[in-house]
Amino acid sequence: MYYNNKIKVEINGYGVIGKRVADAVMLQPDMDLIGVADIATDYRIKTAMRLDIPVFSAIPARIDEMKNAGVTVVGTIDDLLSMVDVIVDATPKNVGAANFEKYRSAGVKAIFQGGEKHSLTDHSFVAQANYESALGRDATRVVSCNTTGTVRTLKPLQDAGLLKKARGVLIRRATDPWESDHGGIMNTVVPERRIPSHQGPDAQTVIPELDVVTMAAKASHTQTHLHYWILELNQQVEREDILEIFRRTPRLVFIKSSDGLTALNSTVELMKDLGRPRGDMWEAAIWEDILSVNGYELYFTYQVFNEAIVVPETIDAIRALTGTVKDGAESMRITDENLMVLRDFFIPDNLQYATQF
Amino acid sequence: MYYNNKIKVEINGYGVIGKRVADAVMLQPDMDLIGVADIATDYRIKTAMRLDIPVFSAIPARIDEMKNAGVTVVGTIDDLLSMVDVIVDATPKNVGAANFEKYRSAGVKAIFQGGEKHSLTDHSFVAQANYESALGRDATRVVSCNTTGTVRTLKPLQDAGLLKKARGVLIRRATDPWESDHGGIMNTVVPERRIPSHQGPDAQTVIPELDVVTMAAKASHTQTHLHYWILELNQQVEREDILEIFRRTPRLVFIKSSDGLTALNSTVELMKDLGRPRGDMWEAAIWEDILSVNGYELYFTYQVFNEAIVVPETIDAIRALTGTVKDGAESMRITDENLMVLRDFFIPDNLQYATQF
Amino acid sequence: MYYNNKIKVEINGYGVIGKRVADAVMLQPDMDLIGVADIATDYRIKTAMRLDIPVFSAIPARIDEMKNAGVTVVGTIDDLLSMVDVIVDATPKNVGAANFEKYRSAGVKAIFQGGEKHSLTDHSFVAQANYESALGRDATRVVSCNTTGTVRTLKPLQDAGLLKKARGVLIRRATDPWESDHGGIMNTVVPERRIPSHQGPDAQTVIPELDVVTMAAKASHTQTHLHYWILELNQQVEREDILEIFRRTPRLVFIKSSDGLTALNSTVELMKDLGRPRGDMWEAAIWEDILSVNGYELYFTYQVFNEAIVVPETIDAIRALTGTVKDGAESMRITDENLMVLRDFFIPDNLQYATQF
Amino acid sequence: MYYNNKIKVEINGYGVIGKRVADAVMLQPDMDLIGVADIATDYRIKTAMRLDIPVFSAIPARIDEMKNAGVTVVGTIDDLLSMVDVIVDATPKNVGAANFEKYRSAGVKAIFQGGEKHSLTDHSFVAQANYESALGRDATRVVSCNTTGTVRTLKPLQDAGLLKKARGVLIRRATDPWESDHGGIMNTVVPERRIPSHQGPDAQTVIPELDVVTMAAKASHTQTHLHYWILELNQQVEREDILEIFRRTPRLVFIKSSDGLTALNSTVELMKDLGRPRGDMWEAAIWEDILSVNGYELYFTYQVFNEAIVVPETIDAIRALTGTVKDGAESMRITDENLMVLRDFFIPDNLQYATQF
Repeated sequence: MYYNNKIKVEINGYGVIGKRVADAVMLQPDMDLIGVADIATDYRIKTAMRLDIPVFSAIPARIDEMKNAGVTVVGTIDDLLSMVDVIVDATPKNVGAANFEKYRSAGVKAIFQGGEKHSLTDHSFVAQANYESALGRDATRVVSCNTTGTVRTLKPLQDAGLLKKARGVLIRRATDPWESDHGGIMNTVVPERRIPSHQGPDAQTVIPELDVVTMAAKASHTQTHLHYWILELNQQVEREDILEIFRRTPRLVFIKSSDGLTALNSTVELMKDLGRPRGDMWEAAIWEDILSVNGYELYFTYQVFNEAIVVPETIDAIRALTGTVKDGAESMRITDENLMVLRDFFIPDNLQYATQF
Repeated sequence: MYYNNKIKVEINGYGVIGKRVADAVMLQPDMDLIGVADIATDYRIKTAMRLDIPVFSAIPARIDEMKNAGVTVVGTIDDLLSMVDVIVDATPKNVGAANFEKYRSAGVKAIFQGGEKHSLTDHSFVAQANYESALGRDATRVVSCNTTGTVRTLKPLQDAGLLKKARGVLIRRATDPWESDHGGIMNTVVPERRIPSHQGPDAQTVIPELDVVTMAAKASHTQTHLHYWILELNQQVEREDILEIFRRTPRLVFIKSSDGLTALNSTVELMKDLGRPRGDMWEAAIWEDILSVNGYELYFTYQVFNEAIVVPETIDAIRALTGTVKDGAESMRITDENLMVLRDFFIPDNLQYATQF
Repeated sequence: MYYNNKIKVEINGYGVIGKRVADAVMLQPDMDLIGVADIATDYRIKTAMRLDIPVFSAIPARIDEMKNAGVTVVGTIDDLLSMVDVIVDATPKNVGAANFEKYRSAGVKAIFQGGEKHSLTDHSFVAQANYESALGRDATRVVSCNTTGTVRTLKPLQDAGLLKKARGVLIRRATDPWESDHGGIMNTVVPERRIPSHQGPDAQTVIPELDVVTMAAKASHTQTHLHYWILELNQQVEREDILEIFRRTPRLVFIKSSDGLTALNSTVELMKDLGRPRGDMWEAAIWEDILSVNGYELYFTYQVFNEAIVVPETIDAIRALTGTVKDGAESMRITDENLMVLRDFFIPDNLQYATQF
Repeated sequence: MYYNNKIKVEINGYGVIGKRVADAVMLQPDMDLIGVADIATDYRIKTAMRLDIPVFSAIPARIDEMKNAGVTVVGTIDDLLSMVDVIVDATPKNVGAANFEKYRSAGVKAIFQGGEKHSLTDHSFVAQANYESALGRDATRVVSCNTTGTVRTLKPLQDAGLLKKARGVLIRRATDPWESDHGGIMNTVVPERRIPSHQGPDAQTVIPELDVVTMAAKASHTQTHLHYWILELNQQVEREDILEIFRRTPRLVFIKSSDGLTALNSTVELMKDLGRPRGDMWEAAIWEDILSVNGYELYFTYQVFNEAIVVPETIDAIRALTGTVKDGAESMRITDENLMVLRDFFIPDNLQYATQF
């Protein structure tokens, strides 16, 4: 028996993103996690059991295989779809697309991840950019970690009338830690085979008028991306003006080399020190003391925690599709307070949300 | 104002070990964390502030430097020493030794870490091996992560009269994640320059009668050690006999490749999935399905989470020195229940502690 | 037109091993490299063209594809088989087995690599152990890099009547440099899922009476393996006795930490400094100043350059199968002088071969 | 006894750069390597002995220490300075500056490396940019690997009147392979603490009128840098125009992903396959099939083999300072033919130098 006024949420795919969305849904006062669907039979899904999350078989025919492996399976995804309002599809790239028809038939609103194409739902979502346009839609796609970081940083400059064009170089992590015992790269850097890389055009699915080009490479590490940007501005500004704009923008946080936060691993450590679940960072972390303004140009670098940055966006997308909260800023406020998304890593919690978005 | 019946604890050095011991002390019903002392001025100590842990200057002359860097400093280590019963010294190797006299003068019992020499306190501590011999002592030394893993696994076999000799090869992590932006190794393996390596003799500081030899190398990863052991037994046994001995031993947990736990990174992911603080694993994790018995020989491999494995031992050492709990098994039970040290990663919590130690 | 008194050699598979064997064949006074067969169309095979090595299509149907990619293809493997005495099959694991019938039909003697099973040819080859038993056979299998290192070091101790049993832990490289932009491991160690690992039993295909058990793990580096061994001896010996045995053994070289050769990468650098082709090390390099004797036990560690160590063995196998040199020591002498396999990395060349094998 | 018409060269510092310059000097028909000076006592200097290169003590007081370690030392650097025309100082950063006075007193022309400041010699050298301005000078500084790559690629576009401004992101290797058993970074990326990074301004020491800004980070690999560039052009051009300019430029080579050269490690492997000493690449390798033109913008990425790229420049600098060859293009032709610097990795050697520079 669930409270009728809570949004009933299902997650399909209890992997890197799915398990984090599950955690986040459980922290929201207006949502109920009804269950997760998967086909795994190993420690990953056994952890869901351990955390008392009801597990369903994502492919009905696999249910016996899962049970034989010792997984307590409550039912199939078809059962689960009949119980929920929204499904978050966090299955591997391209699997989501194949699932869409099933969700539609069940009358369940659907949120896909950035591995799917924009054309799947014709709507790509970043809360701070276009929450309102997702209100009441049947489906949306939360863009990838890299695109989310790009939109979060470029949007406020665009809104301030400053952004002429943006050129970015993205140094990506090669693979996620959980699967780094196979499929990784070693002692090398792998440039993407095309310039522009797909992230720039992808940001235009959220903000069509952006003049943005990206180039990307995979480097030999497993956690978080580092983005470098060269922006051409419409007018000369002071460095402090840019800092102020970023400071007012939700889900961006400044970090400083002078605080000992000198590299990607430093921030990963800080997140653990702050007691965050899984050591996650949902914010894009901009190096304040590296950011530089030079005439009409702005240069900066920030860190994208690829496993986690889209989690708050996904939570907002749930509210947007179901229409329970009409105002994007209000949804973001609820999400961020309950997840403990911060505005500053070192200011006490009770002061974090004083600033008006 | 602190309850008189709680043990008042100070930690000197809020680094990799110190911050974890701080977390653990705060979780114990019979301990109070009075404060931490350090000389850092960066994000590491600012996190302690953020978590409302009182910060003291470990070197009185540095207090202004810390304040100028924005750290709220309550006082100096001398102030702190006057307020506590026990100090856990988690300063870098060899710094601890120099501090001992100060602690002694202040009449504060002291726990050192494995980086210090056995001769410093003439007592080296692993809870399951020699808790009782530390009762009421002024000081002890909690042995290193590698030695702790070694003692936890060899002791029960020794107690069962099975162990003739043990030969181990230790594949160590090269550096800790927080400092992996400098001082690491890359794309290589570095053998220790001496055989036997120091870990074998170090285990003998806890159990003098062990016949143990170790060899060690650093490999190109940052988290957790992998130990391989070849044991010669006094009699032929069944594989199941060995499993049963390990199953009954606290702070050892079995993991299985067949559960998808196939490498060091898998277990690191599992710890995060289980919601553990900092993703820590306090248990030594033995691969159940790799362990093999061949006549008089036993082969096995286990994982040592070097940043965390000594934390429960340190908590027990606090009780042993202060003498508040006379029985080692009882102290271990309290520690493990409050830290949530597990006997099995997949069994529900309420069943974890049913087994008698 | 080729000299009739030279052995006509073909290589199938111009990859990590094949290209090195090609280099080595070209350096032998008694061998002619007639051509290499492959199906690659990329830089790897274009390099063979660049070095004026005739290229043949390993799968006749692929010949057009190769030509279209710009590779000058002289003919198919069938053409090549009609021109040679011996084929070295350096194709990927299990492909070799499927080729054997073709070689047999063509009346060409065949050498397979360690990826194939012993049962394929019923003979597994390490020159110093069993050259003579391969004389005149139709086929043999040069054992893997790890097994070659194992046999080279254990055989002389076995011959001296010293070896009772050998227990090894092998820290393997995860993937080869050329393919480390995919398929590698990152920031982890991966234990093999079975103990004993296959290398111990594999050494018994060469020396059946060895009492040898191995355990193995992949670590996060791309070049060379590190082996640790614990040997139980039949009698107490002096450390110098062991050194002397190894010193007299071909294809073993001592290195010293005190010479700055402190890790796997040091030796890789030294090989480049010595001007070796591809920076290869054909010798197993034993750390002299780490090797230790303790009563009836011997401990030592050595480095196996996995890409190259089997190359001299393969050259010897060519002579053994064709029967052109009856004495293994003589074949090894020819191979080693022409490849510049060394007895000591720092002694001038003209003194290297003074020692009698 | 040396031919009077050869330039007598000494190298101070037989490390990563020094040993490569030594190799290169020995290959030049118009140069004699008289000796190398160093203070090392380990395998690095023993390799020089092994290669019959006379070794001198770089610090006279260290001569006994070197001899005691088994190094054959011919004399001190003072002896060596009296025998040579030019010294190449390849000592660690900042050590070179301290040596300059000694070289000047000895009347020996001096070449420093990019670790020294421009102000040391007031001349920074890249052969294709400013050979002639170094003619007859007492000293110059060959710029760093990154700056050399930058100048080689931007100069021809500048000369063609196309370059308006250049913005680069440099993904650097963290440490060199020989020292990667200490001092490296692991599983992280380390952004430089300042934007602009020093490489952009450093290129202006060679070509003052360049409008160039760089940002840089160290990634977790040991070999070669990857540069990404965004160039604003003075006019719209066709992609082929750019390719043609680069094709005509010496010491630039195109590589293609479609040839299997997909990442930094691929090219490292190719160099070994081509039989190059130490697997070195002296050319900057531009990915032809990634380079892209978009209106007034040009994007491209290339690889800089940091250990080797400055070697041909250093050889040219020797000729420039001594004035034996007046024409930079002629010096580059001699250097490149003798080192086998290529214009195309797959075209046969005899066709490589047909193109007029």
